[in-house]
Amino acid sequence: MPWATAFTKRLGVNFPIALAPMAGVAGGALAAAVSEAGGFGIVAGGYAKQEQFLPEIEKVKQGTGRPWGIGFLTWALERNPRALDAALEHAPAAVFLSCGDPRPFAGIVHDAGARLICQVTSLPEAALALEAGADVLVAQGQEAGGHGDSRRGTFSLVPAVVDLARSVPVLAAGAVADGRGLVAALALGAAGVLVGTRFYAATEALGHPAAKARLVMASGEDTVRTRLFDIVRDTGWPERYPGRALRNRLYETWAGREEALRAHLDEIRPAYQAAAAAGDFDTAVIWAGEGLDLVHDVQPAGEILRQMVSDAQACLARVNAIHRPPQKRQRNTEEDDWAW
Amino acid sequence: MPWATAFTKRLGVNFPIALAPMAGVAGGALAAAVSEAGGFGIVAGGYAKQEQFLPEIEKVKQGTGRPWGIGFLTWALERNPRALDAALEHAPAAVFLSCGDPRPFAGIVHDAGARLICQVTSLPEAALALEAGADVLVAQGQEAGGHGDSRRGTFSLVPAVVDLARSVPVLAAGAVADGRGLVAALALGAAGVLVGTRFYAATEALGHPAAKARLVMASGEDTVRTRLFDIVRDTGWPERYPGRALRNRLYETWAGREEALRAHLDEIRPAYQAAAAAGDFDTAVIWAGEGLDLVHDVQPAGEILRQMVSDAQACLARVNAIHRPPQKRQRNTEEDDWAW
Repeated sequence: MPWATAFTKRLGVNFPIALAPMAGVAGGALAAAVSEAGGFGIVAGGYAKQEQFLPEIEKVKQGTGRPWGIGFLTWALERNPRALDAALEHAPAAVFLSCGDPRPFAGIVHDAGARLICQVTSLPEAALALEAGADVLVAQGQEAGGHGDSRRGTFSLVPAVVDLARSVPVLAAGAVADGRGLVAALALGAAGVLVGTRFYAATEALGHPAAKARLVMASGEDTVRTRLFDIVRDTGWPERYPGRALRNRLYETWAGREEALRAHLDEIRPAYQAAAAAGDFDTAVIWAGEGLDLVHDVQPAGEILRQMVSDAQACLARVNAIHRPPQKRQRNTEEDDWAW
Repeated sequence: MPWATAFTKRLGVNFPIALAPMAGVAGGALAAAVSEAGGFGIVAGGYAKQEQFLPEIEKVKQGTGRPWGIGFLTWALERNPRALDAALEHAPAAVFLSCGDPRPFAGIVHDAGARLICQVTSLPEAALALEAGADVLVAQGQEAGGHGDSRRGTFSLVPAVVDLARSVPVLAAGAVADGRGLVAALALGAAGVLVGTRFYAATEALGHPAAKARLVMASGEDTVRTRLFDIVRDTGWPERYPGRALRNRLYETWAGREEALRAHLDEIRPAYQAAAAAGDFDTAVIWAGEGLDLVHDVQPAGEILRQMVSDAQACLARVNAIHRPPQKRQRNTEEDDWAW
């Protein structure tokens, strides 16, 4: 049975679960699988390069007839605004913008008949997105994988943004990786969740199989927010945005020694590029969030979504039982009691 | 109607809400008020100085016949272990330990017939507390006010600790400040919540009225984790524990200039002590967590607790309605829909 929130109604989907548009991971196949399962798949438009995202848009259109979206880094769109027009020609249900001022692009998105989803990491950013006329806000806590200038935790940011946004639905992002997280986000006032890391470990995700295997093995405590990988990769990320990634040998070698790293880039950068191409993640980066403790396997995205919904239903039943304990239940000894 | 969780059963209380033992704030009057309202009040034993906490224990015993606890900083207890014996003579229902290795004290607590509550900020710390035989774990995220070496967010830490702790109940701490947070914590698998900042803004809290007034005005975004105030105060906090506090003029003046600050301590420290005595919080510290956006007034602690329970019930009804939308409800236009 579908879940009804302001987000599901606004986007025309069955479940309040959206795919985070992870660059290099959330391609058309993954987005289509999420949308087909009743969520909202968002293709990563990433660095706003048509040759990269237009083939993925073709794939999502081939893979699903349900609503899907496209996500851009706003600072990258500023450098290539025509990418937005190229994406809008394919009639996405929504455009997702993060990391930058959405106001210059809001009118273009709305004029094309698409919804505008703005990811925010603070109350001033949320106010800016509301001013831009965002149809959905995503409140991203510092637990989230990948880039962002979040300083606040998901648990505190979500209700604060919800109280500010009033009638505009808010998705919770950052460490939402199972049914418990979905119910918790809804309890905090969110109209749904944006899920990244859990869907990185999906069969359809573009990431390297060796990266997915590391995600399954790792804990949220193995992640760190750092700019180190961006210094090496030279992808144009503004300095204000660190990214949360798995610690690896490259990180352990250079963390705290960024000046020395910069002095050796002539050697390190080609070695990094070779490692990334070869799937050597002792050197290459794997972006990942703190929710990793809850990622135990690689599954098709549709299965992940269905499991999340099913676990959420069980979670809600459990919380309801706390609130309304069974009247006629036999008293157990304490040792028999369950853990809540 | 009481709520039944493993925590409420284990401690013999009606609601899964515990008072954080905030040093200088959670005195006997506040703890008694929380316990009287059906929660679990924990007196701050803080720096383990009998002359400070024994009078507060007298107050909590005068104020309530219900279960209450006492909290110590473990590193302070190591310096004065007799404080634990002095507290246990008063038969607290539980001893709360944070910031240090609980194992040397666990046997003493249990031999006295009290429960052991251990606050943890990571999975290795949780494993250590379980090894010590903790009866309750508190999973504290980095959003929490006051001291701690938390690196992880509440939203990701709680389910990870719950999965590790299995049959040992876990309380969520860090940005839990209203009924939404209580339901979210239960959804994440917690057996209850530990609430600090919201109870700082309670009538019975020992804090200065001017401090409470600032809490009501401030946002979670006005807080920062820093060691700066401890450099000035010289309270013996080990370097690994920063504290989350409101940014103020002292902070803005010296942040990033800690060496210069140390060089001027002869002048700054007496001025700080005078400011703290006078309630001048441009200089003196106010510890506070990211949940501040949800703190809108100063109320008696019993009212705060009752409101939290009542809001949680409404929150749960709202989430249940998302999951099971009313079958015969008139379809509204989207603009009429509520924000979830």
